[in-house]
Order: sequence, then C-alpha cells, then structure tokens
Amino acid sequence: METLVYINGELVPEAEATVSIFDIGFMYSAVFMEAVRTFKHEVFRLDDHLERLDKSMRYVGLEPLITRDEMADVIHQVIAANIANFPPDDDCWVCAEVTPGQGFPHPIMKGPPAKPTVIAYASPLPYDGYAHCYTEGKAAVVANVRNIPPACVDPRGKTRFRLHYFMAKLEAHTVNPDAFALLLDTDGYITEGTGANFFIASGGVLYTATPRNTLEGISRRMVIELAAELDIPVVERDLTLYDVYSADEGFWTTSSYCILPLSQVNHVPMKQVPGPLTQRLLQAWSDAVGVDIVAQALKYADRPSNIWRGDEDTEQSDT
Amino acid sequence: METLVYINGELVPEAEATVSIFDIGFMYSAVFMEAVRTFKHEVFRLDDHLERLDKSMRYVGLEPLITRDEMADVIHQVIAANIANFPPDDDCWVCAEVTPGQGFPHPIMKGPPAKPTVIAYASPLPYDGYAHCYTEGKAAVVANVRNIPPACVDPRGKTRFRLHYFMAKLEAHTVNPDAFALLLDTDGYITEGTGANFFIASGGVLYTATPRNTLEGISRRMVIELAAELDIPVVERDLTLYDVYSADEGFWTTSSYCILPLSQVNHVPMKQVPGPLTQRLLQAWSDAVGVDIVAQALKYADRPSNIWRGDEDTEQSDT
Amino acid sequence: METLVYINGELVPEAEATVSIFDIGFMYSAVFMEAVRTFKHEVFRLDDHLERLDKSMRYVGLEPLITRDEMADVIHQVIAANIANFPPDDDCWVCAEVTPGQGFPHPIMKGPPAKPTVIAYASPLPYDGYAHCYTEGKAAVVANVRNIPPACVDPRGKTRFRLHYFMAKLEAHTVNPDAFALLLDTDGYITEGTGANFFIASGGVLYTATPRNTLEGISRRMVIELAAELDIPVVERDLTLYDVYSADEGFWTTSSYCILPLSQVNHVPMKQVPGPLTQRLLQAWSDAVGVDIVAQALKYADRPSNIWRGDEDTEQSDT
Amino acid sequence: METLVYINGELVPEAEATVSIFDIGFMYSAVFMEAVRTFKHEVFRLDDHLERLDKSMRYVGLEPLITRDEMADVIHQVIAANIANFPPDDDCWVCAEVTPGQGFPHPIMKGPPAKPTVIAYASPLPYDGYAHCYTEGKAAVVANVRNIPPACVDPRGKTRFRLHYFMAKLEAHTVNPDAFALLLDTDGYITEGTGANFFIASGGVLYTATPRNTLEGISRRMVIELAAELDIPVVERDLTLYDVYSADEGFWTTSSYCILPLSQVNHVPMKQVPGPLTQRLLQAWSDAVGVDIVAQALKYADRPSNIWRGDEDTEQSDT
Amino acid sequence: METLVYINGELVPEAEATVSIFDIGFMYSAVFMEAVRTFKHEVFRLDDHLERLDKSMRYVGLEPLITRDEMADVIHQVIAANIANFPPDDDCWVCAEVTPGQGFPHPIMKGPPAKPTVIAYASPLPYDGYAHCYTEGKAAVVANVRNIPPACVDPRGKTRFRLHYFMAKLEAHTVNPDAFALLLDTDGYITEGTGANFFIASGGVLYTATPRNTLEGISRRMVIELAAELDIPVVERDLTLYDVYSADEGFWTTSSYCILPLSQVNHVPMKQVPGPLTQRLLQAWSDAVGVDIVAQALKYADRPSNIWRGDEDTEQSDT
Amino acid sequence: METLVYINGELVPEAEATVSIFDIGFMYSAVFMEAVRTFKHEVFRLDDHLERLDKSMRYVGLEPLITRDEMADVIHQVIAANIANFPPDDDCWVCAEVTPGQGFPHPIMKGPPAKPTVIAYASPLPYDGYAHCYTEGKAAVVANVRNIPPACVDPRGKTRFRLHYFMAKLEAHTVNPDAFALLLDTDGYITEGTGANFFIASGGVLYTATPRNTLEGISRRMVIELAAELDIPVVERDLTLYDVYSADEGFWTTSSYCILPLSQVNHVPMKQVPGPLTQRLLQAWSDAVGVDIVAQALKYADRPSNIWRGDEDTEQSDT
Repeated sequence: METLVYINGELVPEAEATVSIFDIGFMYSAVFMEAVRTFKHEVFRLDDHLERLDKSMRYVGLEPLITRDEMADVIHQVIAANIANFPPDDDCWVCAEVTPGQGFPHPIMKGPPAKPTVIAYASPLPYDGYAHCYTEGKAAVVANVRNIPPACVDPRGKTRFRLHYFMAKLEAHTVNPDAFALLLDTDGYITEGTGANFFIASGGVLYTATPRNTLEGISRRMVIELAAELDIPVVERDLTLYDVYSADEGFWTTSSYCILPLSQVNHVPMKQVPGPLTQRLLQAWSDAVGVDIVAQALKYADRPSNIWRGDEDTEQSDT
Repeated sequence: METLVYINGELVPEAEATVSIFDIGFMYSAVFMEAVRTFKHEVFRLDDHLERLDKSMRYVGLEPLITRDEMADVIHQVIAANIANFPPDDDCWVCAEVTPGQGFPHPIMKGPPAKPTVIAYASPLPYDGYAHCYTEGKAAVVANVRNIPPACVDPRGKTRFRLHYFMAKLEAHTVNPDAFALLLDTDGYITEGTGANFFIASGGVLYTATPRNTLEGISRRMVIELAAELDIPVVERDLTLYDVYSADEGFWTTSSYCILPLSQVNHVPMKQVPGPLTQRLLQAWSDAVGVDIVAQALKYADRPSNIWRGDEDTEQSDT
Repeated sequence: METLVYINGELVPEAEATVSIFDIGFMYSAVFMEAVRTFKHEVFRLDDHLERLDKSMRYVGLEPLITRDEMADVIHQVIAANIANFPPDDDCWVCAEVTPGQGFPHPIMKGPPAKPTVIAYASPLPYDGYAHCYTEGKAAVVANVRNIPPACVDPRGKTRFRLHYFMAKLEAHTVNPDAFALLLDTDGYITEGTGANFFIASGGVLYTATPRNTLEGISRRMVIELAAELDIPVVERDLTLYDVYSADEGFWTTSSYCILPLSQVNHVPMKQVPGPLTQRLLQAWSDAVGVDIVAQALKYADRPSNIWRGDEDTEQSDT
Repeated sequence: METLVYINGELVPEAEATVSIFDIGFMYSAVFMEAVRTFKHEVFRLDDHLERLDKSMRYVGLEPLITRDEMADVIHQVIAANIANFPPDDDCWVCAEVTPGQGFPHPIMKGPPAKPTVIAYASPLPYDGYAHCYTEGKAAVVANVRNIPPACVDPRGKTRFRLHYFMAKLEAHTVNPDAFALLLDTDGYITEGTGANFFIASGGVLYTATPRNTLEGISRRMVIELAAELDIPVVERDLTLYDVYSADEGFWTTSSYCILPLSQVNHVPMKQVPGPLTQRLLQAWSDAVGVDIVAQALKYADRPSNIWRGDEDTEQSDT
Repeated sequence: METLVYINGELVPEAEATVSIFDIGFMYSAVFMEAVRTFKHEVFRLDDHLERLDKSMRYVGLEPLITRDEMADVIHQVIAANIANFPPDDDCWVCAEVTPGQGFPHPIMKGPPAKPTVIAYASPLPYDGYAHCYTEGKAAVVANVRNIPPACVDPRGKTRFRLHYFMAKLEAHTVNPDAFALLLDTDGYITEGTGANFFIASGGVLYTATPRNTLEGISRRMVIELAAELDIPVVERDLTLYDVYSADEGFWTTSSYCILPLSQVNHVPMKQVPGPLTQRLLQAWSDAVGVDIVAQALKYADRPSNIWRGDEDTEQSDT
Repeated sequence: METLVYINGELVPEAEATVSIFDIGFMYSAVFMEAVRTFKHEVFRLDDHLERLDKSMRYVGLEPLITRDEMADVIHQVIAANIANFPPDDDCWVCAEVTPGQGFPHPIMKGPPAKPTVIAYASPLPYDGYAHCYTEGKAAVVANVRNIPPACVDPRGKTRFRLHYFMAKLEAHTVNPDAFALLLDTDGYITEGTGANFFIASGGVLYTATPRNTLEGISRRMVIELAAELDIPVVERDLTLYDVYSADEGFWTTSSYCILPLSQVNHVPMKQVPGPLTQRLLQAWSDAVGVDIVAQALKYADRPSNIWRGDEDTEQSDT
C-alpha cells in the first residue's frame, strides 16, 4: 500500500508532498516539529509532544499556528491512512510539522499569514539501522560544531533550524561512519546528540545535561520517571568530557529506539556495553508500554528501511 | 507577463515552485543561497557572489553541489525569462539557491544525493518599501536574540539557517514596525541586520564589524572599496552600543537598496540623517554603476511590490 | 505635616537633605542601602535587611560603617518622626543608606574616614503606580543593557552603583512606558528587574534565578518560604527567554508591592494574569502580615504619590 | 583665598557644595564627568573633553543635559574664581560634573527633569603624591575586581559609576599602599588603572588596550599623537599579563601627571624605570605644552595637597 | 634510617630517584598522581584514591598504565620500607605517580610505551608548617592566575600539569608569605587552593564549588559525608567573592592536615576563626579515624619537616 | 659516535640524562624550553630564542634562572659534542631546557633554589617523518581539547606544561594517524598545532592567529618577514573554521621542517597542496639560509630517525 502524507488537509503520495519555496518554513527554517512513535499502534505520550510544540511556537514569538487538538487530529489521520502497512506487532513513527505558511512576495511580519502549512507523515521504524546496537552499543563522536547557545536560539524550541546538526553529522560520519555526533555547548559542556538526549552513569547515579542547553526530550523525561521508579538517582548537571570518559556506562534516548547503549566516545570505550542501568531502564520501558522493544526491533531488522545504517537519522527520531 | 521560477532545470510559474518536504534543505535548513541585483539589467558582481556560494558549501563540509558556471547559467536563464517585465531603466533582484536534494527516506550521510535542488527566482525591487528612507533614514531596534557564534555556525556561510533572523524581526517589529532588527553577538558587539551589513561613522572615519562575527557582504565590500577611492578611512573593529549611540551617522548596506541611512538605534537618534559620508558613498555607488540609485527607487516607488513596508525583507536583499 | 529626613544624627526637611559633592558615596557610587516597608506600622523583616547591609559592606572590603543596632535605631527614628502622616491602616516605605563619608580632598584609602554619612527617609507607598497591576499585571521589557557580572561587582551587594538600572529603565520606557525593565546577565540568563526579583511558574513549579547573578531579595526569600508552606516547589536555575515565553504565569516581588503579576515579556503575553500561584502567594503574604495588601493599595490608590506611574521606581522598592 | 565651587550657577565654599540625596546622580550613579588640567593657566584640550562628555550622555540614552558651550563657560568661571591661588608657574586641576537632577519623589523616567545639577571645582595638582614617581616609577597591583564589560556599561562612558574602582583601590592598597590598581576585563585582558590609561613598550613598540574595553583617555590620545610625531609605533591590542610581565617598560597616563613610569606589576619589576620611550614621550609632552612637567611637580612637591600619597586619586586625574 | 623511594620496581635512596629527561611525564606533564596519608599507619581511603587515578588516565585517553592492585602494592611496599621512621602515634604521607614512560627518541603516539614509569615515596607530615593554623587559621590570597577550564584540561584529572599552581603560589607568596593561593575559574567563581579544596559556611550551611571546575577531593568527599552525619546541610554551587567575603567561617581540606580553618581572604577577615562548623567537622574526622588530628600535629610540630612554613605544599597534600 | 646530553655542566650519554623526581620541573611542569635547529651547522636565530626563553621565565614570575649568554654557551657545547655525527650538508636540532631545580623536601617558594637544572640535547632532524609532506601536505585534525586561555597560562610562555598537547595528539591520532592536531581556543578560534604555528591563505593574503592566544613562534616571525619581502600581505586575526575550510591553501611552520603544506582540515581538503604562496615562502626561506630545505630533507629521508612518522613531534620542533 502506498504511503500517504498529510499536507494542508489532504492525504497525498510522498512524491507529491511539497512546500512552496516561498514558505517561511523553507526561507527561515521556521518549521515547528514533533516526532512520535506508536506502541501497539497507539501514539506514545502525545500530550507531552503537543505541549512542547505549543511552547516552541510561543518561544519564537508566534501565537500558536495550530491548536493541540487540531494537531492531534492530523496525527491520527495520517496514522489511520497508513496503519494497514504495519502488522499488529510492528509500530510506526510519525513526524508532524507546522510553518507560518507562505511569506513571499506577501508580508512576513504583518502577523502570521492566513494559512499555516501543516504536514504529517508516518514511516516504518528503521530497525535495520539500530537493532544490533542494543547489544553492541552505538558510538559517539564529539563534533567541532557546537550547539547553539540559548542566548541565540534555545535548543529547547524544537524546529528544523538544524544546519549545525547537519554539519555535526558530516563531521562525525567522516571520523566514524557508525557513530552519532555528540554536541558540546560553547563552554565545552555536553548537550545532546543530533537526534537524541545523552545519559551517562557513574557509581550507580545517572547524569544528564540540564535544561539550560539541551532539548527537553520526552524520552529523556520518560527515562527520568523510570529511574525514579527504579530508585536510580538522576542528576542534571553541567557535564564535561571527564565525566564521559570516566563513566561506567551511557546511553542515547529518543522516540524511535527508546534507549540505545553507548559504546564509546571518540577514542575512549565505555566500561560496560550495555551497562546494567541501561538494561534495567530499557526493560522498564518495555514493561511500561507492553512491548518488548528489543525483540520487536530484532524481529523486523531484516526489513530494509532505506535508512542508511550509520546515521542517527533525526527524521526517524525525536528526543 | 507571468513571473517564472527556475527549479531543477525547468522554468515554472511561482505557484508551482516547490520542494519536497523530504528535501535536506527543508529538513536541515541546508539551503545555500545568494541574492543579486542588476544595474542596467546586468548582474552586479556576480563572480563575488558565486565565490561566496562556493565557500558556504565548503564551510558546511560539502563538495560544491553546483559549479560556479552552472549557477551563473541558472541566474542568466531566470533573468532572461523574466526581463520583459522590467523597463530598461528599472532593475530586478534575483535569489539563487541550492540544497543537497532529497534526503529521506534515502540516506543523508552517504555523500550528497545524486540530484541537488537548484532554485532561482527574479522579482521587482521593493522600492515602495525603502525609497523614502534615502532621506528619512531607517531605524534599528537591537534584538534580544543574539547572532549565532562562529563556534556554532559561522555567520559568513550564507544559508537559510535563519530562525534567529525571523525571531529578531518579530521582536523589532513589535517595538517599531518601521525598523530593521540589529543583531549583537553573544558578547554584545554589533554584528549586522537580518538582511544588511551595518556601518557607522565618527569623526570622519567609517566603522563596521569585523569578519569574525558577520556576513562578509558583497555590498559591504563595495562600500569599503568606494571609501578607499574617496579617501575615507575604514576600521573593522568590535563595536559596542557606545560606538553606535555616540556616532555621527550610520547606514545599512545590502544588494537591493545599496545604502540606506540610519535614522536611530533604539531610543537614540543619529546626529545626521542622512550623513555626509553616507551621501558621498551612495553617490559614488551610483556613479560606479551608471544608475542613479535613489532616482530609480523614487521613480518606481508607487508600484506596489507586495512587500510590506516595515520589513527589511531579507528575501529582497543580500548583503 | 512636613516629611523629615534623617541625616547624620539630625532630622531635617527633605529640601535640606544633602550630601557633599566630595562624599565617597557620590564620587564612587559607594552608597550601601536597604529599603524596607511597614505592615501595621511595624518594619517587615528588619533583621534580614540589616544583615544584608552588613554583607554589602563586607563584600566591598570595608569594616561595617555602622552597626546593625545603630541602623535599626536610625530607621526607627525616621519612622517615629513621620508616622503621624500615615493613617493606622496605611503603611510607609523607608530607605536607609550609609556611605564612607567625605573623601576629598582628604584621603580615600587610609581606612574609612572618621565620619560615615548616614541617611534614612520615609515616604508613602506609591499605590497609584501599581494598585491596578494586581489585576492587570505589569509588563516586562528585556533591556539590551546587561546586569553586571559577579566577577566585576556582585549584584548581591545592595548599593547605589546603579547606572545600568538607569539605562535599562530609559530603554524599557521608550519601548513600553508601562513596563519594568528585565535584566539578563552576560550569558543571556534572566536575572532580575531594576527593583524587583522575578519569578515564573510552569506546570505548577516556581522558577527563579540563582543567587549567582541576582540580588537575594528579602521579598524573594519571603516568596520561597511561603511557597514551602503552600507545598509549591521552587527551583533556582539559570532561566532563558524560552522558560519565560513558554511559562504559565509570572510575577515580580519587592518590598513595596510585595507581589505583582507579570502581564507580558516583550511581545509575548503570559498565559494567566494573574496566575493561580501568584494569587495564592499574595494571599498567603497578606495572611502572614495581617494586612490585605491589595485592598490597602486600592484604598489609597487615588492619593497621588508624585511617582510617575510607568516607573518601577527603585527608590520605592527593595527586593 | 578660599576655594570656591561652582554649583548650579553659584560659586560657593567647598563646605556648601552639596547635592540632594534625591539627585539622580546620587541615586543611580548617573553623574557625567570630565576632569581637566591647565598648562600655563589654560585648559588643556578642552574641546576633546567636552566632546566626550557629550558622548557619555548620549551613550546612556539622554539628550545632552548641558551644551558644550555652557560647560566650557562653567569651567572657565570656576577657574577664574580660584586662579589667584595658583602662582603663574603652577597649574590647577578642574573637575566638571552634570547629573539629570533631582528625581525623587518626582518622576525619574518622564524625560530629564527641568533642572540638571551642574558642578565644577578646581584644586591644586597633588604633586606631593606623584612627583617622586617620575624617577622611581609607580607600581601596579592587578585587582581581583574586573572592569565592567561593555555589554553592561561601556567603560568609555565617563561617569561616577565607580564602585568597582573603589573596590579595586581597597584591594590594591592592602597589597601595596604605594601602588595603583590595574583592572583586567572579564577575559583577563589589560584595561586601565582606576584613574589612568596604561601603556607598555616592548622592542621599541608601544602597546595599549583597544577602545573595546577601556576609557578612551584624552591623555591616551595625546600619547598616541606624540608617539606618531616621534616615529614610535603604537599598537592597540588585547594585552595579557604575559605582555606586561615581559615588557621593557611601561607607564600610566592621565590628566594630572600626564605620564608616570611604571615600576612593577604585582611581583614582577619592569626592566627599565623610567624607560627610554617613557622619557621621550614625557619630554615631548612638556615641549608641546611649554611647561616642564617634572620640574613643575618637583618645585611644588613640598606643598601638602592633603591627598594621601599612595592613592592614584581619580578625583585628581582624568584619563 | 634512610628514606627509600620506590621507582620502577626498586627501592632506592631519594638522591637516586630520577626520571629520564625523555620521559613523557617530564616532556608533557603527563604524570598521573595520588597522594595519601595514613592514620594509625593504615592508608586512608586507598580505594577512592586508586579509583580516581584510574579516572585520570582514562580522561587523558590512555588505557590504564597500571592496575589498581599493582599501585596498591607499590604504595604498601614504600610504606613498609619506611615505616620504621615513624613512631606508632605518628603517621606518614605517600605520593604515588605513574607516567607513560620514555617517549623520545621512541614513538610517542604509537600506543603507550612498553614500560610506564612508576614512582612512590613516603615522607613525614609537615606538622611544623600547619599545626599552629588549627587555632590561628590559614589565609587565602586570590591569584590573578585562573584555574584551567574543563574545556581545556579538566581540573578533576589529577596530574602534575601544574604550572598554574606554581604561578599562583609565587603570586600569593609575594602578597602574604603565610597564605595559600585560592584559584578562581575564568568566570570568577571560586574553585580550590593549589593543594586543597575550599569550603565556607553561612547561616549554618556549608558551601563548596561544584565538580564542574574543581578537583573532586577525597577529603572533600569525607567532609560532605561527615556533614551528612552531623546534619549540616552542604550546597555545591558557583560561589563568588561575595559569598566568601560575607561568610561566617571557612576552611581548607586536604589529605595531610584534613581540615584547616580559613583566617581571611585577601584583605577581608573571616568572622569566626576557627568557626563552629569547622571545629565540629574536624572533631568528627578525628573520631572517625581514631586519631586526634590536632593533638598529633601539635605533638610533632617541633620536628623540622624541611618544608617551608608559608607554602601549602602540594607535594605534602592531596585533596 | 654516541649522542651526548648536556646536563648541569656535564656531557653524559642519553641514558644517564635524568632529573630528580623532586625537581620542580617534574613536579609543576615548570620547565622553560627552547628548541632550535642549525643551517650549515649554525644555530638559526639563536638570539630570538634566548629572548623568548627569558620572557617565559619572567612571565611565570621568576628572575631568570640562567642568563642568555650562559644558555647560548650550553647550546654551543652540546652542538660541539655531537656535531661529528652530522655530515656537512646535514643539520641538527637542539632542545634546551631549564627548571628551578629540586624543590622537595626543600622549600619551593623561598625564592629559586640555589641550583637550577639546565639541560640541552641535540638530535637528527626527523626527515623520514616529514620529507614526503613537502609535496603531499600534512593533514590537520581539530581536537576537542582546547588551548589554554591566557587568563590561565598564556600560550606564549614556552614550557613543558603540555598535557593538553598530549591529549590533542592522542585524539588526532585516533582520527587520522597521519595528521597533526590543530587547537582552537575556548571561543573556537584557531590557535596553533601542538608543535607548529598555522597559516592559511585566501585571495593572495596570508592569515594567522593573533599573539593573543598563540605561541609567537620564531618560525612564524620568519614567515611574516619573508612575506613582507615578497610583498605578500599578512593579516593577524581571529580565524574560524570558516576561514580554514574556505581557504585556498595553508601550511604549518616550525623550527625543524620550516614550512609544511597543509593537505586538509578534518574532512575538508585544501584547494591547493602545496599552494603557490607556500612554495614561494619555502623557497625564500631556503634562499635566506643558503640551504635547500626540501632537498636536504629528501636526501636523508631514508635514514630512520626513530621518530614515528605520524607524529608532529613537538620534541623535534619548536615554533
């Protein structure tokens, strides 16, 4: 069955899913986005994603271009239109986007144009790209490109303002084609991957970056809540490469794969891959959603997703 | 006559000028761009623009997606297709863009995709938005949003990675709908407008930001060369609001309007609007290109450009 | 009855309250100050203010120029001399100051001069300036001027070293004459107003700046204590404009008006004005001091205070 | 003869020279100032000082509170009233100040009050404090207190916003009572003394801080002009303690003593005290003004100036 | 009995304890070190020290050059060889070091050389240098030299990369020969001494720097654990000189003297020397180890340690 | 013939060249060093090196531990002792070092110890490591480790305080074993390699980092002087990765190989390898010293130097 994309009220084939070159989304990277996945065909923590979408628009200074209910409806429509492609024990990933609409040669600043551009599309989870990493781990390469400081554009606003992600991916790819890029802030503190939040553990304590310089991922929040249930202490702190290189274990967390163990950072291998806390948290997540996350990924890992395996693939993830 | 847009080898009406929502340009703001204008229907300093386009791609880490000759040809094609819309004493403005092409669900990192997306479009100069400013000047509002530091993404790479521009415009617009936004860097030094470089003059000396934190505009370079011919000293230096508030005069410079006098910065008016150096430089520019820039703007200022007047309109300019 | 000012042991009319132009307070902005208000004619948290005054002098490197007991006595004297001007259900505001005294042409550095300058004055609370804001809220304009970093002069030392406040007020006033200025630090994190601490609330949690870059207001401390009693969590953290623009509600807190709801920040309105947490805290404060703070302000709001309404008026407040 | 001070149109004895405690100058350190000296009873570079005064007010965001001509007249008045105290071969020092006037309980922000406060006073040059330093040199102690960054308040605005100067003086005084404090900026680069600009020389080249973080002293400008005449190259650059500790010689420059050799910085002695460039520049200055600056100071060094000798005495200087 | 040093498997007299000038430890300051002391002739918290040594090597990017067990054995060997020099109620101090070994003219980068250099030596505790400070306190001088930021070399890696310590000691020594140097970070926040962590207390709460910019001392950890037992709250926070100058009391903590009261910082005396919390913590430490730490130091204070008394002596301490 | 090392007045075989583990050079990385090479068996620019050695010691705060003449004599002694190993058309490289001497258990701070440690050794130039790079170029990998800011320890002091170099080498080596590490400063500006200064050229202009954050190499100075003779403009400026990635050509410069073309930086190849300016400068250098630098290297490139080829080998170079 053909994949259909939602765009401005219509469901169209992927090849017809386009935006004007005069769309403010294209001209100013003003694309507000969220990406979610399903468990048992139900969207995971949709309210959290819709709330964050709302905050991203408010942050930029716009009145919300779409209500939460409208966007929820759009997401449900695109799932309904594509769900027949997924067996009951498989799940899918959905990206939802909104822009202020066409801005040229019409006014840009006179308030949002009459008609925002609304997009949503569903796709298979790229299991072939990450299923093997649940045991082998996934490496990190620290990019020279630094994450944008909040004094410029706060990383917590989730948008397609992402050239630095693209540059970091290119950089990391040439160093290690199987690694994710890890971004530091301008003071050298750890922030996040280009499509995932980042945790380490030392002496039984989980550490992650503060909300000061990092996207507040919904998966990150899930990890923090699971850790609370498992009595694992979590500390949000400015972390340096010392923390990372001397850690016991670490992992990435995002919407698609949920939790992926960290294998090494630059030239320094992690002590435990996967580490015991990583495994407990992943198990707890599977329990919470009623899906064996690793088993699901392994079952469908042979289905080519057309996603190149060495890429963390922001399009398929969402922290 | 209908306006035609060049897109991937074809000339199409504006309404058909679209890119895929899976284009890396849309997904990662990886759109490399240049905007030029004509004088007497000839493109002004095209080689300089093409060289900068090349540098922007190299900076991001890509092998050039299009050669200089190819892009020159694209620009000439789009002008040829639209020039009949412009009387001999009018000129036009052209924006040329290239992206790595479609990146999803195909690989992103495995090298540039087979087919970059190439775009060019011509449009009237928005005289109605700025003709009156040659005498009245154009105000600046300093935005809270700061320009991106070069440690993250160097402002010299000219791309559509521009959410901070959009935010600065929104901010400035609510303070003064007739003002341009002026961006400081994260240390508080002056950088540039969202579509123009920025000069001030004190005691007969021109000052502008260094290339460390500012787009190296072709218009900026033109000003520096004209100043050398007129024996006006030019200093590139880290400038603060003290320099600006205590200056004698100032101006904006970009491809479309060339030079526009500065009327005030925040609540502080400039001493001279337009100032004598501003006027000499603008006259010298007119002489150099054989077009009376101000007269041309005034002659066609009644033609509505569909560009809202209070907007500095990056789409119509290019530093 | 004439208002009397305490100055160096005497009670004099306002017009006679002067300092030498050679006073180190005037020459070096070395004026240590506290401002307090009364509830039911009793000074609120006087000990906390006197302790902070002591710390301000120690920070600058001086042995205390006046003891806590002496300053308490001065404050009580000036209240006694003016209290007849205030009905029993009205209250007053008192500013107390001390400088190292006259320093020229006498030595500056040879230890503190024999005779510090001690000042205190009482005045009506400027209800007409803020009574209406308990329901309408008070706007914030983020100033370009940044708060002084602690590596230079720690904002926790409470002094009349306040030119940056004056500049921020001028800036904010031209953008919105009814707004307070909000100051960021040099990294772009929220600090405080020019006469008030600043709180926001998101998801039921109160957030405010850390003591690293902000005056530790006595009113701020009162809010934190009241929040503890009301089981409202309080987080001290580096806050960015993302936090503020995406917040549910916010408020200012200072000695005079205690708590004033935040209506908007720059061009972004708050979601709730006044917000529920703001209201609960203000009610709890009224309960704690036995004065209905809002009712008191409304009752006397028609009495002109000679304080211009759009000004946050540091002289009448004290965080 | 009694010393008379100019204050708001009157000439009064020093003891009567006062400002209201409600003056904005006292309340916000908003005192704009210049200090000049005479050579042969003529004010040195008065126009330069008046231009800077004007810039200081514009920087803060105020329309000039007094015209240049008015302030020139005030300065001449105060000199005329006191000049009989100075023999023909002696000179005097004059400080001129202006504030926005009384701001409380009247409005602060509604534009400048009707009546600015204008002050000027003359005094003897404190020869006894520095005459011996022309041969022995004057030490520097680097203070922990850092100079205010231009993103907060630009050091080029000359005002009495000077608590950091007072703190630096206290600090330096306890380390070495005979030293001036030297201020670094927040990145650790050399800026200036609390009352003087700072130069070093290495390999025959003069170095001083850039105008980015330092008061642009009139004396500094004089040195740069004299150096040009003497063919001594001058470089404005970010200087570190390496530059200073490894320099050949150095000096302070300000209005009163003109040029004073540097003897040591912290624990590191200068190689040459006074150094040859220092001596040539001082000689050239004497030549330019027709006064033997050192001889004049030595002649009157026994006259007590009531200025404590270990203090650089900002009140008596002006860079 | 002669003191013996362990070096690469041998026990040799001090005069024979040398390393090659081609050792990477000498050439690149790549010397990983720990220093421990004994209580009742047992090494205190040896495991903690060995774990940190391991982390220091991992941080630099090396596979551990020596295992924890091997280094424990080395330390025990050197103690066994020297213990006869110490009476039963006296204790000793041991320094253990490892380098990558000789690196020239052999390869440096081809992986660690075959034979790391391993060193350990024991020495008397320098009681004569600090016994009197338990009552008098020990002063701090804030150095101009700033601590290295973690973006360069994280201060948590314990190595002999210590030129900044040497410079800070020289600086402090010339200001006050009886003081320790206190290091700020590049933002002006308190970090540590050159051989000790630093605590202050205000209002019954202990404050110390965060692990972001400070060595995580084993003694610091001991203090935090003892404070928990004594119900003294401990806050890790960015501390400024305001915190320090306005504190009630303070202390230094390191392996040798355990806890030493702070007497003053620069020109500002502490309010209580020794303070009550300092005394309770020191007593608790004595209790925990079964040695009266102060009595032991006083008993042997007359034995010359050949350690100059004004020096904090990193070689004899270890945070 | 055996290689002899000068150490404290004696010439000893390499295996006997050792320092005490109590030497301050070992304990605090306080080793002041210079490395020079010969042309035609004469030391190149010895005076410049000796002057810099002097400055390094002064910067740290020490009176020179050795005079220039004494160190010149030491260098000549070690050359005389080894020169028979080098044919007339070959040259050698010499490293000279001085430390404050033994500091433990003797005093560290009581002034420099009686007897500094003085070291010098000569060795073959490692032609086999770099001869092929004159045509192929040498790659750069930008390290995550950042260069030390001058507020901590100025990179211009040439010492063995070099752990960050060691870390950067390890990092670069794992990315590209044939690359040099390139160090950025904490703001992301280019500084230098771990053993060489770094130049790029764009549009016929040479660019290099300013002395603000970079060792002022003698070779760097030679390049600037040669460029002046060849009328090639040289600009010292804060350079970013944009400058580097978009440059036409680049090179490394240090004492041993003089000038080595840059082949690529991270994943971005240089446009010209070797570039025309690189070649002209190298030719001019050969002419200036009367030695064909490239031919000499190629002639002896087969002689194994025991220096691993992928290492930039600071020990054999000196900027």
